[in-house]
Amino acid sequence: MTGAHTDRSLLPGAVVALGGGHGLHASLSALRHVIEQVTAVVTVADNGGSSGRLRDEFGVLPPGDLRMALAALCGDDEWGQTWARVLQHRFAGEGAMRGHSLGNLLIVALWEQLGEHVDGLDWVGKLLDARGRVLPMAVTPMDIHAEVLGHDPAHPDEVTTVRGQVAVATTPGRIISLELDPPDAPACPEAVEAVKAADWVVLGPGSWYSSVIPHLRVGELREALISTDAKVVVTLNLGEQKGETSGYAPEDHLAALLDHAPGLRIHTVLADVGSVPDPEALEGIVRSLGAELVLAEVAAPGSTSQHDPGRLADAYARIFGGVESFAPWR
Amino acid sequence: MTGAHTDRSLLPGAVVALGGGHGLHASLSALRHVIEQVTAVVTVADNGGSSGRLRDEFGVLPPGDLRMALAALCGDDEWGQTWARVLQHRFAGEGAMRGHSLGNLLIVALWEQLGEHVDGLDWVGKLLDARGRVLPMAVTPMDIHAEVLGHDPAHPDEVTTVRGQVAVATTPGRIISLELDPPDAPACPEAVEAVKAADWVVLGPGSWYSSVIPHLRVGELREALISTDAKVVVTLNLGEQKGETSGYAPEDHLAALLDHAPGLRIHTVLADVGSVPDPEALEGIVRSLGAELVLAEVAAPGSTSQHDPGRLADAYARIFGGVESFAPWR
Repeated sequence: MTGAHTDRSLLPGAVVALGGGHGLHASLSALRHVIEQVTAVVTVADNGGSSGRLRDEFGVLPPGDLRMALAALCGDDEWGQTWARVLQHRFAGEGAMRGHSLGNLLIVALWEQLGEHVDGLDWVGKLLDARGRVLPMAVTPMDIHAEVLGHDPAHPDEVTTVRGQVAVATTPGRIISLELDPPDAPACPEAVEAVKAADWVVLGPGSWYSSVIPHLRVGELREALISTDAKVVVTLNLGEQKGETSGYAPEDHLAALLDHAPGLRIHTVLADVGSVPDPEALEGIVRSLGAELVLAEVAAPGSTSQHDPGRLADAYARIFGGVESFAPWR
Repeated sequence: MTGAHTDRSLLPGAVVALGGGHGLHASLSALRHVIEQVTAVVTVADNGGSSGRLRDEFGVLPPGDLRMALAALCGDDEWGQTWARVLQHRFAGEGAMRGHSLGNLLIVALWEQLGEHVDGLDWVGKLLDARGRVLPMAVTPMDIHAEVLGHDPAHPDEVTTVRGQVAVATTPGRIISLELDPPDAPACPEAVEAVKAADWVVLGPGSWYSSVIPHLRVGELREALISTDAKVVVTLNLGEQKGETSGYAPEDHLAALLDHAPGLRIHTVLADVGSVPDPEALEGIVRSLGAELVLAEVAAPGSTSQHDPGRLADAYARIFGGVESFAPWR
């Protein structure tokens, strides 16, 4: 799936992708075609849907984003594909099971049987013959708290604290900053080690405040991201996301990242060529951060919100392979 | 686990065990140590617990007995044992998931994803690296209806129809006969084929009316059991079961079987040596049926209700291996 121009021997051995939800799923679906093994580090601050219900019922980490990441890394053969489908199966009907995902329940059962988060996720990885490893960013369930300007439209100049991923993701106001509760939960040690040992780290795409920035609020993980020798790629969303990033230009996404992790050195910013209104202005800002801008066609055909895994794979292969940065707009 | 006296080359290639619940689990836990591949044929008339809830919610076959049979056949290594534990995991707590078994949910998800009962069960078998195959007796969810004498203790001479496995299993009255609703559901074709092709068929132990006799009420399966060239072993329970078989002597169990499948030829009756009050009387009855009685120590140490898988394995190995029938009481 990688371009014919890519020399695989130049590709990195260790890539870590951080995020959550559909953004991380797209990212991993791409990366699995570029390198042998990917490590995903996943947010654990979701409080909605099946994950939220399981969190409430059993006090466990929200499993949904972990499940989705594992499914994205499933093996290519009938075995891996079938188990991924089954893990992604969502119960319908009108009863108590409605909306629960089988994979979420499987992960909770493994945690309860094995008593260890990473071990349980590794077993799901073995089941799927996964092309890598999926780790939680921390092993404590967390909530996100956001300082929001104008959360109440009747008071547009007032800053209030909005609590919980669902509420933050749908606020009509403008998010100023994000914290985790508890604020000092230890990072998952395996995730910290993976970031330290990585050749490349990929941040985004994804819900910026509820899937990408939470990683930067886990102290040990933020420190690892700042101090690692890995090159950091930030993959921008295709546009603003109603609620979290209403009105955000591409550069506002970068600013929000750096606000929450001062000192983070970005190596490459990857953006969809059709989603950047002013490429030269963005390039100026990216260069001022000491980074390279890569603009490529990475949106799914006809979509203004979803990345295409194949195109994203081609772009990552070029970036990791050290192909000269390309600027088709010049 | 089989006795040193057993010549494995004499052991049969194809053994089918019919039953449900804990009885079938014990039977399969034994048989997996005696022969390479076992086929289990499982009742689908359960309406209690997690299975009953899933039946109500999704209109599916009750998965619980199928799950338990699959777990009994799991591989011996860490892989098979771990997945069996996870399948058997039952959610605790006080919420909507309470009492559901992960394996039941997995089986329902496979059925919904794959659209085919036997295929879904075969996938669970592959996951567990199972020592055989687990089939439902039919692919229509069913209920058992029993004619019961004195179901209402105030009217001990009145015969009433008691509906549903839970009610039948706990009736204070005496069960006279058992029917299935619907009465004419087709058998699972793979189960019929397995019985026809078997060298040995094992009936029991288990809840006599709710796990063993239902198979005999599925027309095609009963006909296959009567016409097969396979030798039929009936393994008796260790005693009466409060509700279903209160007051039943060993021979009453045999009579109930034959009442529901006239023409069934029994080759061997296996009973626990400590659970037969009058061995000579039982032997007379068994001989009059043209069968051999094998009395062996097959109860779990200290138990009056559970078979020991190892001892049961030894007994099956002797029976299948054609060791002279032994009568330690003579």
